[in-house]
Amino acid sequence: MSLLIKNGVIVTASDKYMGDIFIENEIIKEIGLNITRVADEIIDAKGKYVIPGGIDIHTHFNLHVGNAVANDDFYTGTIAAACGGTTTIVDHMGFGPEGCNLKHQVDVYHEYADNNAVVDYGFHGVIQHVDDEILNEMKEIIDDCGIQSFKGYLTYDYKIDDDKMIRVFERLKELGGITTIHCENHGSIQYLRKKFVDKGFTSPKYHCLSRPVEAEGEAVNRMIKLAKIANYEGLYVVHLSTKDGLEHIKKARESGQNVYAETCPQYLLLDESKYELENNEGLKYIMSPPLRSAENCEALWQGISDGYIQTIATDHCPFSFNRDKQLGKSDFTKCPNGAPGVEERMALIFSEGVMKERISINKFVEVCCTNPAKIFGLYPKKGTIAVGSDADIAIIDPNKEVTFTTDKLHSNVDYTAYEGFRLKGYPIFTILRGKIISKDGEFVGEKGYGKYLKRNRI
Amino acid sequence: MSLLIKNGVIVTASDKYMGDIFIENEIIKEIGLNITRVADEIIDAKGKYVIPGGIDIHTHFNLHVGNAVANDDFYTGTIAAACGGTTTIVDHMGFGPEGCNLKHQVDVYHEYADNNAVVDYGFHGVIQHVDDEILNEMKEIIDDCGIQSFKGYLTYDYKIDDDKMIRVFERLKELGGITTIHCENHGSIQYLRKKFVDKGFTSPKYHCLSRPVEAEGEAVNRMIKLAKIANYEGLYVVHLSTKDGLEHIKKARESGQNVYAETCPQYLLLDESKYELENNEGLKYIMSPPLRSAENCEALWQGISDGYIQTIATDHCPFSFNRDKQLGKSDFTKCPNGAPGVEERMALIFSEGVMKERISINKFVEVCCTNPAKIFGLYPKKGTIAVGSDADIAIIDPNKEVTFTTDKLHSNVDYTAYEGFRLKGYPIFTILRGKIISKDGEFVGEKGYGKYLKRNRI
Amino acid sequence: MSLLIKNGVIVTASDKYMGDIFIENEIIKEIGLNITRVADEIIDAKGKYVIPGGIDIHTHFNLHVGNAVANDDFYTGTIAAACGGTTTIVDHMGFGPEGCNLKHQVDVYHEYADNNAVVDYGFHGVIQHVDDEILNEMKEIIDDCGIQSFKGYLTYDYKIDDDKMIRVFERLKELGGITTIHCENHGSIQYLRKKFVDKGFTSPKYHCLSRPVEAEGEAVNRMIKLAKIANYEGLYVVHLSTKDGLEHIKKARESGQNVYAETCPQYLLLDESKYELENNEGLKYIMSPPLRSAENCEALWQGISDGYIQTIATDHCPFSFNRDKQLGKSDFTKCPNGAPGVEERMALIFSEGVMKERISINKFVEVCCTNPAKIFGLYPKKGTIAVGSDADIAIIDPNKEVTFTTDKLHSNVDYTAYEGFRLKGYPIFTILRGKIISKDGEFVGEKGYGKYLKRNRI
Amino acid sequence: MSLLIKNGVIVTASDKYMGDIFIENEIIKEIGLNITRVADEIIDAKGKYVIPGGIDIHTHFNLHVGNAVANDDFYTGTIAAACGGTTTIVDHMGFGPEGCNLKHQVDVYHEYADNNAVVDYGFHGVIQHVDDEILNEMKEIIDDCGIQSFKGYLTYDYKIDDDKMIRVFERLKELGGITTIHCENHGSIQYLRKKFVDKGFTSPKYHCLSRPVEAEGEAVNRMIKLAKIANYEGLYVVHLSTKDGLEHIKKARESGQNVYAETCPQYLLLDESKYELENNEGLKYIMSPPLRSAENCEALWQGISDGYIQTIATDHCPFSFNRDKQLGKSDFTKCPNGAPGVEERMALIFSEGVMKERISINKFVEVCCTNPAKIFGLYPKKGTIAVGSDADIAIIDPNKEVTFTTDKLHSNVDYTAYEGFRLKGYPIFTILRGKIISKDGEFVGEKGYGKYLKRNRI
Repeated sequence: MSLLIKNGVIVTASDKYMGDIFIENEIIKEIGLNITRVADEIIDAKGKYVIPGGIDIHTHFNLHVGNAVANDDFYTGTIAAACGGTTTIVDHMGFGPEGCNLKHQVDVYHEYADNNAVVDYGFHGVIQHVDDEILNEMKEIIDDCGIQSFKGYLTYDYKIDDDKMIRVFERLKELGGITTIHCENHGSIQYLRKKFVDKGFTSPKYHCLSRPVEAEGEAVNRMIKLAKIANYEGLYVVHLSTKDGLEHIKKARESGQNVYAETCPQYLLLDESKYELENNEGLKYIMSPPLRSAENCEALWQGISDGYIQTIATDHCPFSFNRDKQLGKSDFTKCPNGAPGVEERMALIFSEGVMKERISINKFVEVCCTNPAKIFGLYPKKGTIAVGSDADIAIIDPNKEVTFTTDKLHSNVDYTAYEGFRLKGYPIFTILRGKIISKDGEFVGEKGYGKYLKRNRI
Repeated sequence: MSLLIKNGVIVTASDKYMGDIFIENEIIKEIGLNITRVADEIIDAKGKYVIPGGIDIHTHFNLHVGNAVANDDFYTGTIAAACGGTTTIVDHMGFGPEGCNLKHQVDVYHEYADNNAVVDYGFHGVIQHVDDEILNEMKEIIDDCGIQSFKGYLTYDYKIDDDKMIRVFERLKELGGITTIHCENHGSIQYLRKKFVDKGFTSPKYHCLSRPVEAEGEAVNRMIKLAKIANYEGLYVVHLSTKDGLEHIKKARESGQNVYAETCPQYLLLDESKYELENNEGLKYIMSPPLRSAENCEALWQGISDGYIQTIATDHCPFSFNRDKQLGKSDFTKCPNGAPGVEERMALIFSEGVMKERISINKFVEVCCTNPAKIFGLYPKKGTIAVGSDADIAIIDPNKEVTFTTDKLHSNVDYTAYEGFRLKGYPIFTILRGKIISKDGEFVGEKGYGKYLKRNRI
Repeated sequence: MSLLIKNGVIVTASDKYMGDIFIENEIIKEIGLNITRVADEIIDAKGKYVIPGGIDIHTHFNLHVGNAVANDDFYTGTIAAACGGTTTIVDHMGFGPEGCNLKHQVDVYHEYADNNAVVDYGFHGVIQHVDDEILNEMKEIIDDCGIQSFKGYLTYDYKIDDDKMIRVFERLKELGGITTIHCENHGSIQYLRKKFVDKGFTSPKYHCLSRPVEAEGEAVNRMIKLAKIANYEGLYVVHLSTKDGLEHIKKARESGQNVYAETCPQYLLLDESKYELENNEGLKYIMSPPLRSAENCEALWQGISDGYIQTIATDHCPFSFNRDKQLGKSDFTKCPNGAPGVEERMALIFSEGVMKERISINKFVEVCCTNPAKIFGLYPKKGTIAVGSDADIAIIDPNKEVTFTTDKLHSNVDYTAYEGFRLKGYPIFTILRGKIISKDGEFVGEKGYGKYLKRNRI
Repeated sequence: MSLLIKNGVIVTASDKYMGDIFIENEIIKEIGLNITRVADEIIDAKGKYVIPGGIDIHTHFNLHVGNAVANDDFYTGTIAAACGGTTTIVDHMGFGPEGCNLKHQVDVYHEYADNNAVVDYGFHGVIQHVDDEILNEMKEIIDDCGIQSFKGYLTYDYKIDDDKMIRVFERLKELGGITTIHCENHGSIQYLRKKFVDKGFTSPKYHCLSRPVEAEGEAVNRMIKLAKIANYEGLYVVHLSTKDGLEHIKKARESGQNVYAETCPQYLLLDESKYELENNEGLKYIMSPPLRSAENCEALWQGISDGYIQTIATDHCPFSFNRDKQLGKSDFTKCPNGAPGVEERMALIFSEGVMKERISINKFVEVCCTNPAKIFGLYPKKGTIAVGSDADIAIIDPNKEVTFTTDKLHSNVDYTAYEGFRLKGYPIFTILRGKIISKDGEFVGEKGYGKYLKRNRI
């Protein structure tokens, strides 16, 4: 099975040049000028950008929260990913039963994903509690399961205390693993939520007000300092949403301390005014951290441009507006948190970022494809266009115009957070290991084609 | 009873001028040129600085810790204060029995101090736990007891969690009270202490290494953010020891958020090399936070000069080297924390600060006398030289040279942290409410002359 | 001749207390409680603030510019000062004939001021060119004429080049003198002015656009660096108008380099939208540097509060709107630069600063009275309320409400830049060396009562 | 003519992967896995890094200064370049006769370089004066001569004043050109040089002291502000040597203003202690700007790592120690400025940067090869390894150890500034347009093989 992509403008995190790509046996065999080899299939990419397939390093498929289940499973969710130009996702696993070991959820998630996913996939481990057993177990999770990253939360039911977190840092320093952290200050959020509910302030905007920017900034700084104390260079802040948090990351990196940061399209393109929409539409945007002011959005774009933010992921976690989100209709604390985005990401960042000249096309590839692969142990198999790499490719037509509407998208949910966004540029082919899995925004792959990815230590 | 101080150079936080001061009935009645009134006693202060009596806003007398009792009570401790030019102290009360209310320790401390203290005194309330009762009780502690400030710890046994601390902030915002906080990150310190002890690293320098600068900086930032969330302007960071913490305070103040910071002579003049002294002399310097690098000292001097640090206090808490401190001889975690300093402070800051041109003489008065009075509700009764104010005065001879040795000092303890420091300039008179209580560094007052000070809301 | 001010709230740069002030032979003899001495005159200041007389350290009286003469001379100008609570002005002398020595203008200005001024006055020297003779002459100007400060311009006809300016710095370091500098980048301004005029863009707003914030920030930084190279601590930036410039000053001071900064009410309270007023009213606000955006105003208030800006002066330089300013009607480059303000300053800063809680009342006194005296060698004779000081006092009634209109003010000019400003609090007495020179905003002094002030080296 | 490079680790600014490269007709035709094509020559690069040929964007060949001529011409200089792994140089042309137009020096330099250079080459234009004719001429220099960058000096004989520089910025904004600037404050340097010489302080260290860090920081900031005023995004600071300058660049970039910065190996690896070497060896290091303190070196490495510095060039300008440099023996102002480095650069940055883990290997390629090409209009023809690009390649053996000594190097000069540096990793092949021009550090190319490069607008 071979595929030849001709005449495209090949783009990597640093380069942009004309060339042909010859793919065989799932990998890129040759990049050349005017390749004349015979191929089973030929795509003429003249005038199109040929980029690495997108990597969404932060999704939540099959997620069970207290009173709801995220509407995408590994099948529907990865179809949405594929249609949006994404060829790999790494899912943040949900919590298992209290006290369970790390392996427990790995098994559960293989059950969810294997034979269902249509793009390649991996899992981030989840830390529910910290003790000697869990710390010991990490070695085999990394070595045997190929999971080199673990998520900790600083709020919610399974929040990790500082002394525990520092133990995780020291352990993953030894093992060469990444710690991804949801950074929000628990105490202030608990306090504010109770205060607002006690006063009867329960509309969506109080979700936002109960999770102030300072709560994120504080927690980001705290984790940076603990990592510094542990001399640990694998701290990764998920879904950064604030200028305050960004400034702490910047200061750390300028001092020579390595810290990674991820943001998401919603924190770049949507702002807190959404919470005041009529008809309770604000419920659609209840997510944590919440949307922020436009000033924060601008700061995050600059942070990407300056290199302080390394990745853009989605935190895709869709709940239906008409059913699930209505649980929060009269009390925001009851509303399941999250929003869809896995399909929209690549087009949004290309259109709003590259075409509007906020970032270069190389930076787009870097944050959406290459860096996620490098940080999370998938590179150079994934994340770039180079010989020997998996033939994971998205072809973007810079002239194709699309307006987002729910019915055109593939997530199993009844709204998009980007309704009405007019895009300039859209992925017209998504290729996974040499096979076209999406064409003109429609899925043409097959269930279960996605493979599980063991990821390497850094 | 009247006293006339003639020909001195009167110094306040902003002024410096020649004049005479006439004192009657404990207060300053008149400041004039060539006052010719008849007075019971006359001091000729020609060539001397006449400044407000020092206010040490952070002492620990009669303090009981787990395995030791601080060696100064309110009698010996205030004698030391008086001999060093200090006329007012405000003591941070120790913990009472678990679960006790705020009033409990107020009563205990009146027992300690009343009829014993030789300088005027007040107390800071201590927060051991936070619940509705405690928050309610604060009103009467402020109104009836005249205690407008409360101390919370972020480490040690009675550490206050974030959600509780924010409740304190909201309550004291209502009441016009100050929250003084010992800022160190508990989790990392617990972790490091255990780690070092487990490895057998128990010498004094591990005390220092177990409480890294980041632990302070983190906690300072956390409190600033919680105060910001609560829109509370009465946060006061005690014994700031790091550049990291200072930078957070600076950023807050520059943004318009009011935060107060205190440092101590030991963090300005001593550094962490002390922990490596031979013969376990490092035990003398076991205090929390610990001494830091010289770079931190320099940053703190600059912070005073720039106005980001408002007060210099001592955290006076003396344990004998030969008995108490030896408890930590083979394990730093067993060593009682603290060092003396109430007598040395004024001379140290005058000599090392003013005479070495690190700060102006007005700044010296501001941080050692005026600001403590203003922030803690004693001004203008205390803290300045103005008509109507209590006649609390120190007279400093800028030409008197003194070398600190333990035997010349009055604290009931067997060492001084500043042994061998050569001072240029020393207080030669200390006058409390018009009465000379110390002369040429020796105590001439009487037991119980000190009065309890009710302090006003800000 | 004696005066007793009773029952007022006396305010200095650091204190605020109740007391009486007894004045005799032009100086403050006594500050006391319930002074019962016999006095020629008694003022009951109950409920009023008794503060040091204002010092306006930057005026331009009798100023000749190319095509106009500032409308106030030392008589009318100082009457305006007196009516506004100001008892001392220090005037920036205009340029003399090309090549003249420093003494030339001193003589000219004594001619202008002596026997005319109604408040005390001094002069800043003006540097038109730099050579060995001028540098030599500085010594006698300081020693004999009592002028310890010299002004240099970085733009206009007599701009001083960097190599010359550094020579001035080295010389005034030796002599203990201050260099006051008008900081704007000449090259860019020349370029922009020409460009706009060439294009026919000649309305008032192009005055503003031709002097961008970067032009000020650049020049401030340049002078700071030259002063650093010369190790000179006497640099004083006049009329700072930008956040950009402020940040350079801040960075210098934080690094331990002493730099002074002055701002003016117009840069705190008016913004660049004035240039777009109808009927060419923008001409009223043509001054250099120009008014800036509101964001800059806020930054300057914060800079005062944080201590990075030490003084507020006026740059009072009035040209009539109906005659002089109209010269710029069809070409902003022809419009004489400047605006009145010497009378409005104290009330504006009290009302907009203190009453609106942007700054404390002590800070108000510090920046409007005490710091100008300290920096420019007038302290403690001027600038505070202390025994032995000149009895220069303003009494402010915090409850008096005044609305500024041109006809109520005393400058010899047909507009006020603050027309319609509603003030809460106003000076009701101005006392110069014990003599009331203004009462209820009206002048009651006499021509020529003002004395020339020799100022001391720092 | 074809060449096949097999089994190497191909490195670009973002990627690192195994692959073969097939070169034909001077360009890269194919990158593939196990290429089996027939080639005229095959290199086995197993275990070696295959990177883009180095681009030294700042050299001075054939340079005539007042009293000396740089010892390398385009033949010897480019041989040195080739032997060090560099395949392209862009030379900063020297000054022509006063008043000459831009074209004059272009012609002179073609005379120097054509038929002599052994690597490809371009020229930066030089701005000696600014007037309408020069500004007009720029268009044809860019369009016809292919020179899209122009150098201005802020010091030396042909320094450009601010108003002129802003005209250049506006013009090159229109034309899409780069302005490269030597940033040092002229006035302070002139002043200090004269002062030192007048005092008889003429040893090499006074060269350093006469050009303080502030002189660079000031000039960098000034140019940034002028560029901001002109809204010009093509400012490029050459040979940045200070933390002070870097901080201004950082602040500009963080605010969204595009500014480029270049540094050189000497500012990263040598420090000012060199000026105090015995036997007048300090003369070897007389260059402008001078070497700085080690703290500055560290800041520059961090600046590269954080992305604020985009390129590393050499400012190669060799004068013989035994003859030319001795002109400054008794007066540093007489010493010709400059040092060699074109051959040492690639190995130094690989060994000291990559092997010592200060920067990644991708960053090494980015700053030494890719960014210079991108900024100066040579990309993607030069600066990367991609199909269609010129086959300019350096092959680095990471295990080859070399110690720098003058006799092993090829510059026509009698010393190296890096004598005794022990390197880990060295270029073993340099390939220019498919032809091996250096092997094992020895030149194997031919005179005149280098081609002139027309460079594109940005």
